[in-house]
Parts: sequence; C-alpha cells; structure tokens
Amino acid sequence: MKATIERATLLRCLSHVQSVVERRNTIPILSNVLIEASGSGSVRLMATDLDLQVVEHLPAVSVEAPGAITVSAHLLFDIARKLPDGSQVSLQTAENRLVIKAGRSRFQLPTLPRDDFPVIIEGDLPTSFEVPAATLAQLIDRTRFAISTEETRYYLNGIFLHVSEEELKAAATDGHRLARFTLAKPEGADGMPDVIVPRKCVGELRKLLDEHGDSNVSIDLSASKIRFSLGGEEGVVLTSKLIDGTFPDYNRVIPTGNDKLLRLDPKSFYEAVDRVATIATEKTRAVKMALETDRVTLSVTSPDNGTAAEELPADYGSTGFEIGFNATYLKDILNQIDGDNVELHLADAGAPTLIRQSDKSPALYVLMPMRV
Amino acid sequence: MKATIERATLLRCLSHVQSVVERRNTIPILSNVLIEASGSGSVRLMATDLDLQVVEHLPAVSVEAPGAITVSAHLLFDIARKLPDGSQVSLQTAENRLVIKAGRSRFQLPTLPRDDFPVIIEGDLPTSFEVPAATLAQLIDRTRFAISTEETRYYLNGIFLHVSEEELKAAATDGHRLARFTLAKPEGADGMPDVIVPRKCVGELRKLLDEHGDSNVSIDLSASKIRFSLGGEEGVVLTSKLIDGTFPDYNRVIPTGNDKLLRLDPKSFYEAVDRVATIATEKTRAVKMALETDRVTLSVTSPDNGTAAEELPADYGSTGFEIGFNATYLKDILNQIDGDNVELHLADAGAPTLIRQSDKSPALYVLMPMRV
Repeated sequence: MKATIERATLLRCLSHVQSVVERRNTIPILSNVLIEASGSGSVRLMATDLDLQVVEHLPAVSVEAPGAITVSAHLLFDIARKLPDGSQVSLQTAENRLVIKAGRSRFQLPTLPRDDFPVIIEGDLPTSFEVPAATLAQLIDRTRFAISTEETRYYLNGIFLHVSEEELKAAATDGHRLARFTLAKPEGADGMPDVIVPRKCVGELRKLLDEHGDSNVSIDLSASKIRFSLGGEEGVVLTSKLIDGTFPDYNRVIPTGNDKLLRLDPKSFYEAVDRVATIATEKTRAVKMALETDRVTLSVTSPDNGTAAEELPADYGSTGFEIGFNATYLKDILNQIDGDNVELHLADAGAPTLIRQSDKSPALYVLMPMRV
Repeated sequence: MKATIERATLLRCLSHVQSVVERRNTIPILSNVLIEASGSGSVRLMATDLDLQVVEHLPAVSVEAPGAITVSAHLLFDIARKLPDGSQVSLQTAENRLVIKAGRSRFQLPTLPRDDFPVIIEGDLPTSFEVPAATLAQLIDRTRFAISTEETRYYLNGIFLHVSEEELKAAATDGHRLARFTLAKPEGADGMPDVIVPRKCVGELRKLLDEHGDSNVSIDLSASKIRFSLGGEEGVVLTSKLIDGTFPDYNRVIPTGNDKLLRLDPKSFYEAVDRVATIATEKTRAVKMALETDRVTLSVTSPDNGTAAEELPADYGSTGFEIGFNATYLKDILNQIDGDNVELHLADAGAPTLIRQSDKSPALYVLMPMRV
C-alpha cells in the first residue's frame, strides 16, 4: 500500500476513529486502525471495539499502490496531530512496517495484517429511515444524561428507541429520573423493533453530528444491530451492536394525574438550585422546595456545611407543600430546557414529578423526589 | 462582625487565599479562611497550611461592625463564585454561624473562633529588597520546571536563592537537569542568607504576579522565613517557611570546557523533538541526536512502537557524534528559550550539556545525557 493524504484530512478522520478505540486492549489488533487505499484514489479508515465500529472514507492526494494495513490508532493520531499544518503525509507499507513520511519526519510503525482485523457482521438491517442530524443531536442531548451507569442494569445503559402509531420515541432512565424525546415517525420506521442503543455509540454519534449539522442521517437497523450513515458516500458509518435486554415499560412511571402546576424561569431556577447546592455534600444532596402561592423557597441543610436558602418568584396557585429533589438531577433536567418557562407538574412529596418546557415540547422528564 | 463587600472583590481575593488551603486537612481550622473586618472599612482575608500563609486586604462597601471569624475557605469561595455578578455580599456573625446574604440567597456556615487560627510567626526578617514583578515571574518560569518532586530529596523541592558579589541567583535541579537564573543584585540583598523557597510558595507567588505585572515585589527574609509583598497597602502578602536543608553546590555541575557548539532554531527543535518522541514510551524516553556538519538527526527507537526520525538544519562545525536526552526534559528547557536561537554546548555522549539562548541570557540550563 502507498498513499498520500493531506495532514488536515487525515487528522480529522483519525480524530473520529481513534475515539472508538479503547486505550487498553487485551486483543492487540483492537488498538489498531485499518487503513485501506483503493485504486479509485480514496482511503478508508476503520476502527472497532467489537461492539462499535466506525468506517470513514477520505479523499487521498494520490494512491500510488492500493492495499491495506493496520497500525496503532492512537499512535497514528498523535503523529498526525504533531505534523506541521499543511503538510502531506505519505503512508507506505514495507516489511511488516508502515512507513510514514511528512516534511523531514519519518516514522516506521509496527503493523498487524488486515486479515486479522475484526469486522462487525451487520446481517440484514430491514428497517431504514432518515432523521435530520440536528434532530438526532437534540434527541441525544435531551435524553442521554439520564442513561444509567450501573453495569448490573445493562438494559438501562443506553437510549431506548421504539415507535408507536404516529411517533418515534427515545427514552433513557436510571431509575431516579427519566427523559423522553418524541418525534414524528419517519418514513420507513414502521414495524421497527424496539432497540437499546449503547451509551458509547450514542457518545460517538453525538460527536459526529456536530460536523454534519444540516444533513440527514440514514439509520438502518435490525433487532440486534444499528447503523448510522452520515455525510453520504465520502462520509462516516457507525455500526453498533444493540443492547440485548428488555427496557422497562417506562410509560407506567410517567404521571398523568399530577394536579399541582408550578411555572418558573428555568435559568433563575437552575442558578438558585446550583447556589443552594453549594453546601450539599455526598451524604446530603437533596434540595428542599417549599411551595407557597407564587413563591418557591429552595433550601439545603447539611450537618457539616450549614444551611442555604433562596426564594424565587414563581407561578403557583395550588396548596402549599414541601418536596425534595436530588440537586444534580434537577440541574441536569433544567439544563435541557430552552426558553424562559419550565413547568413542574407535582402531586405530593412522595410522587414522581413531571417536568417539561410546555405541553408542546418534544422532551419530557420525570424526576423521583427525595425525602427531606 | 458585619461587613458588606462587592462580590467581584470578594471572589478575586478568595481565589487567591483558597488555593493555599489544602483540600484535606486533619486540623479542621486549616480548612478555614480568617475574615477580619476593621473599623477603618477594610477587610482582611487570611489562609494558611502552617508552612505558607497568605494575607490579603480588600476594600469593603461598608463595615457595620468590626470583628473576626473563620469559615470554610472552599465553601465561601464556591458560594462567591455562584453569586450573581454585580451583587453585594453581606457577611455577619451570629451564634457560631456566619450569615451570608446576597440578593435573594442566604447561607449560614459553621464557624471556628478566630483565636484558634494559626499564624506563622515571621520573627525578624533582616534582609529586604525589591524585584520587579515581571523579573520575578521570569525567574520562576525559567527555573521551577526543574524543581525535584522526590520528597526524600526535600532540599531539592524548591528554588534556591543566593547572592554572589554582583548577582542574585536562582537555581533548581532534580539531579537530571539544572536551571539557573541570574539578575543584578538588588539593593538590600547584600549578606542575604542562602534560602530554598518551597515549590508551593513558588506556585502561589507565580499566580499572584500576573495580577501585579508592572509593580515591584518587596521581599523580606531571614534564614528560616520569606515574605513577598505585592501591591502595597491594599495588596497581598505571602509568607512561607523556607526549606531547612542544604542545596548542593550546583556550580560544580555547570560545565565550562564543553567545546562543541550546536546552534538551532528552538521552535523547530522543540517541534521535531515532540514529533519523534510520539513513539517514546515510559521505558524508552530517550531521543537520540546524531550531530553532523550543519545537521542534526533526531531519532527514537521503541521496541513496542517502532522508530521515528527527523533531520534538522543546524549550525555545527565540530566532530560528529551521537548523544541522547530525555525528550521531556529537553522540551521543558526549549520551552523556556525565546527568540530564534538556542545554543547547546556539548562535550561527549556522557557529559552534561549546557543549554542557553546566548551568553547574554539570564537563564542557563544543564542537562544530563541518557545512554542511547
């Protein structure tokens, strides 16, 4: 193999693929990126962790000899990062080595044969539809903070995607809070199996979406695999195994009869929660909300750090009562509310609370209270 | 005590004093900042770790009741950080608590009595002189990277200051590299004892210097204590115990007979070392320099990662030979060279090398070679 690539192009692609590669691998070839130069003048980079695979095409300045090889992804990325801006990088295989030349620099990296490189067998992906990149980015932002990190509850370690009659819904929960994002069912999503997209795939996809803000993302999936294609022919393809588990019936926890409505400015609310939570500790993370007519008083009491309180003007007309929430969880949700209004639908101090921007917003959140 | 302070003023001062306070303390009061409001309308903040003490004066909006109290420095800093910009902060003692009010927020923090707050007894500081803040900043930048982090060699854990006939010299070394900075002996420094200023004091001082760029710093010292005063009356005073040890006679390791002179552009040199060092590992950190007439070839060989090489144009006229250096140490030094020229004075592959910008530069470096 021999190919020449612009340093900036190589660096951009490597920054995508190297982040799929885990820092520590027991199987050596999983540290490597597969580089494949074709006679047509394009180069394909590929990386995998066996569950998630990324493939990216990039234009070469020239391909002198088609071929393929694998080398350390992080090493090649670090080299590309340090090469002078504007330089051209020549990649050439020679005696179990990859020779990299750019300017006056010359590197020889150990290689592993391309035939040993594992590829995720996608199989048949019968469901195919498209979603605008910006919508998909929003779907991820509004839900992924609620993904569980508990490895024992592996079926909560991702975003649940499923379709109803009219809609495509995304949900994530860790048992303490739930986030749901709804969009009109895309054409082709009919009869889609319920799937759970793993956290790592969500994270890598989110990074790629920023670079493809105004295009559509093609999504192809079966019950066991999902593929995201961004940027067409010369773009990036992310293929992931899906989580093999059953997502709980989350609709049961979305309260429907909460009759106490509190309205506030989400920014002031966020800042006030953040301030009173300053004195919260590992042991006491709860912020207490005392609701009175058109007023909320936030407070935190810590045995070690003292007390904090702040009063906020609010729109509230029901009976006064007190309720407590985990301050961090509350801030995570408020962080996702745009505009100058947030609605909290409350029932009592022990019942799950529904939070949303308005009844028209595609995102909806449920937060379990804490005893205070 | 009752005083009102602008949030921005309080935040700036707390950012200075809280960084002296260690995150974990076995003695509770060492987590606290001493706040002292005087009848004259000024407030004094003070923090200590028993070895280093910082005192800062700040103007209050008003002092309603003079007095003093101590509260958690990090907690007060976090609160000040989160308070709205432009707000006024009221601090008032009440029943073993400090009540903090700003806008609609109200905090009550636990306190410890001011009388328990430990103060470093400075004793007599017979040597007094001034150094421009910018010069002191340069002195620190040029030397502190060479300070040893080995706790067993405690006498190397700081910057050594001493005077000769004409000069004030600062030196730091970890046994592998040495950095020395020289300035004309300031008036008043005559007969100054040799002192070793601890790393933490150096770090805190360096941060403060950026805010006092164009003023003079007053330095007062004895054989056991040093005091840095910045910004006059309403300024900051940093007092530190000195390291009780003997700094080695470092002049013996500064080579004087190195007859091979290599001249390069420090920026290209740095970047080339950085590039070839990409493939260096924990075990193989050495970069090899092969010197030939007007050319240097840098190379690194790693059993795991392959090889890297880069050729650099240079000004060199002596016999060719090879020498190895720790890549990180070499970069640390090159990082401190301004301008477009660096001189390496070499003898042979086993002898310490002298590095400097020119024979006129106040800074000088010695680097031990590595076997390659």
